[in-house]
Amino acid sequence: MAQDISVDGGRLLSRLDRFAAIGATPRGGVNRQALTSGDREARALLASLGRERGFALRQDAAANLFLRREGANASLPPLLLGSHLDTQPTGGRFDGALGILAGLEVLETLEDAGVSTPRAVELVAWTNEEGSRFAPGAMGSRAFADETLPESWLEARAPDGARLGDELAQTLRALPDVPLAPLGARVASYLELHIEQGPILEREGLPIGVVSGIQGTRWLEVTLEGASAHAGTTPLAFRRDPMMAATAALAALQADVMPRDSDARLTVGRIKAEPGSINAIPERVRFTLDLRHPSQERLDEMDALVRTVCEREAERARCGLHVRLLNDMAPSAFPEAMLALAEAACTKAGLANRRIVSGAFHDALFLARKAPALMLFTPCRDGISHNEAEHVEPRFCVSGATALLETTLAVLCSLEG
Amino acid sequence: MAQDISVDGGRLLSRLDRFAAIGATPRGGVNRQALTSGDREARALLASLGRERGFALRQDAAANLFLRREGANASLPPLLLGSHLDTQPTGGRFDGALGILAGLEVLETLEDAGVSTPRAVELVAWTNEEGSRFAPGAMGSRAFADETLPESWLEARAPDGARLGDELAQTLRALPDVPLAPLGARVASYLELHIEQGPILEREGLPIGVVSGIQGTRWLEVTLEGASAHAGTTPLAFRRDPMMAATAALAALQADVMPRDSDARLTVGRIKAEPGSINAIPERVRFTLDLRHPSQERLDEMDALVRTVCEREAERARCGLHVRLLNDMAPSAFPEAMLALAEAACTKAGLANRRIVSGAFHDALFLARKAPALMLFTPCRDGISHNEAEHVEPRFCVSGATALLETTLAVLCSLEG
Repeated sequence: MAQDISVDGGRLLSRLDRFAAIGATPRGGVNRQALTSGDREARALLASLGRERGFALRQDAAANLFLRREGANASLPPLLLGSHLDTQPTGGRFDGALGILAGLEVLETLEDAGVSTPRAVELVAWTNEEGSRFAPGAMGSRAFADETLPESWLEARAPDGARLGDELAQTLRALPDVPLAPLGARVASYLELHIEQGPILEREGLPIGVVSGIQGTRWLEVTLEGASAHAGTTPLAFRRDPMMAATAALAALQADVMPRDSDARLTVGRIKAEPGSINAIPERVRFTLDLRHPSQERLDEMDALVRTVCEREAERARCGLHVRLLNDMAPSAFPEAMLALAEAACTKAGLANRRIVSGAFHDALFLARKAPALMLFTPCRDGISHNEAEHVEPRFCVSGATALLETTLAVLCSLEG
Repeated sequence: MAQDISVDGGRLLSRLDRFAAIGATPRGGVNRQALTSGDREARALLASLGRERGFALRQDAAANLFLRREGANASLPPLLLGSHLDTQPTGGRFDGALGILAGLEVLETLEDAGVSTPRAVELVAWTNEEGSRFAPGAMGSRAFADETLPESWLEARAPDGARLGDELAQTLRALPDVPLAPLGARVASYLELHIEQGPILEREGLPIGVVSGIQGTRWLEVTLEGASAHAGTTPLAFRRDPMMAATAALAALQADVMPRDSDARLTVGRIKAEPGSINAIPERVRFTLDLRHPSQERLDEMDALVRTVCEREAERARCGLHVRLLNDMAPSAFPEAMLALAEAACTKAGLANRRIVSGAFHDALFLARKAPALMLFTPCRDGISHNEAEHVEPRFCVSGATALLETTLAVLCSLEG
């Protein structure tokens, strides 16, 4: 393998623009939620770019899409690069797409230079990382790691009423020339470049973060059941108002959890009152909680606190309570050997770096169950993500792709060592 | 006029069943929201029942539907009976429908007995009393009283996206044989029977409430604007979370307004977070407040308190705030002379009664601007309304219709006196 090769920054940046146009929003962001027509269009573009370079294509039952640049020994498990093409409903241009296009840039740079790698290098676009349209998130990478797609996921419904199983089938049919492969396969190692989605690298002026681990995430759906009644005629003593219970519980949790523990995250992203009539006490209020913490023990405590507070307020309002666990991802750490490899490769390429804990979960969390995995972060402006204003400086996109290329080469070497 | 006539209870009860079948829900309630196909079907049934008895039909630009039983002098303004056929999304069988069908029963009883009244007696089904699909409520009676249909109402959108102007036009076209009359007309007097929607008459074992007045109602829509950001990576100090502001404000208001003043009502029936992603801090949270009080002064104070508390919490969460007034109905009282007439008529018919303040607004509130108006209440089980479990005992339906007939006759007499 030659090591004196470098990525084509102009190509990478123009590809980022091209993908950002798919699902572009008027405010400069992207709405390309999982398994929508926009997501299918982005997959089709990635497939056609891969096909143009002669990379072998395949997809699996979770609609994960693979591009394979063959290596000297086709029977060795590949080094896998990946990220995701789906976005939040009001998402940005870089969350996911940067990792995919930097990975494609690595494959193309190897191809341009005619480098023969000892084993295949593959790029994968994981399905539904965001989880904003269908829970749980990181669905594709999780299914790949577990080598199964749970039946219960297929029945998941989007807020727009669409059924996951139907959307998956339609997405697969949208690429009729791409063969279907079994879910899961041996992987030698997994690398993912992603934007930090937080303020640390930018604040410290560093182009690269070497991700040491990912904080744990738990999603709960809380349903409070009361009794619908007339807003004007029902005195307080006769009310069983689930909205009173919901707002009291949430106000108490918001005032307690994050102010008391700066590592804790508690977010209510979705709430609905039924039947949703202005002049009727709701019968039912349902909301989600996104809980995160680097410590498993604290995450368990936060979960328990949510249940205790909701029980207390449900009882006070004489409402029923049901708490459903939608998603549970334990905190994790990447292997020290991988961290050291990446640090050395980046430093050798002149890219200043530091170790960093990821506040978001990522597909790499699940790939780490199958193979030594690693993530690299680029800075993003003001730490803003999951927002149309999300921005990564062009030079940081290019340095991110460079770090991914150098780490790819280093990992390929170490695998043969 | 003969006064020894009585309503046909069996006919009334079977009609209640027949209308309850239109939009019937699996749990025994009715979903027949304003200007939906179910509402049109109920209007068509009422029109056909009126046509069978030879009553003259007409509708107006607000889709109010009138049935007229002619009197001796066709040039005198009619005595008008009315209520509404639309329901809440998970509404009951009696709210509105009982008043319409008791009014029809009065017209038919007069017809059965061949009673000649000095002036016409009319029945009207007002459009969109509930206001749950399109704000404001009591739209038809308000347009009739004001003799205009504001342009802005026509642009109102239902949660399902339908435009009011389109739905109105389609509803009018659904009764092509019913002529269109101008909005508003002279009315000699207005009477409405309705279910109490509260617990008082049932608790006191009284079949009839003579409504002395209606508490004031104000609907506010509060919008909090923050910044969408990643749930996992955004520390508390970086958050501008409108959900934090919304829940803090609502919890504070819920804990203060009703516990401190037993006449006050504060209800949050609708709330939405956008974009509505589990793992993103919402950009925007919007909710409605339904405020009620018999005193105008206290209603103003409640309105001011809502704004103050929302401003405080918006500022604390660094969010923008916009409060929109959706509906404003001042408290009102019915004329003493009408109350006395109704009390005497009910008592003479052996129907024990008491005066009562209405917690709900009603179409009668707007008709009171045009003519001496009056409402009668029947008890309902456990005070439950705006709920599929809403129930009125058959004997109270019949006694309500009897009270409406007796009051009709008494008012007709007094108008000629």
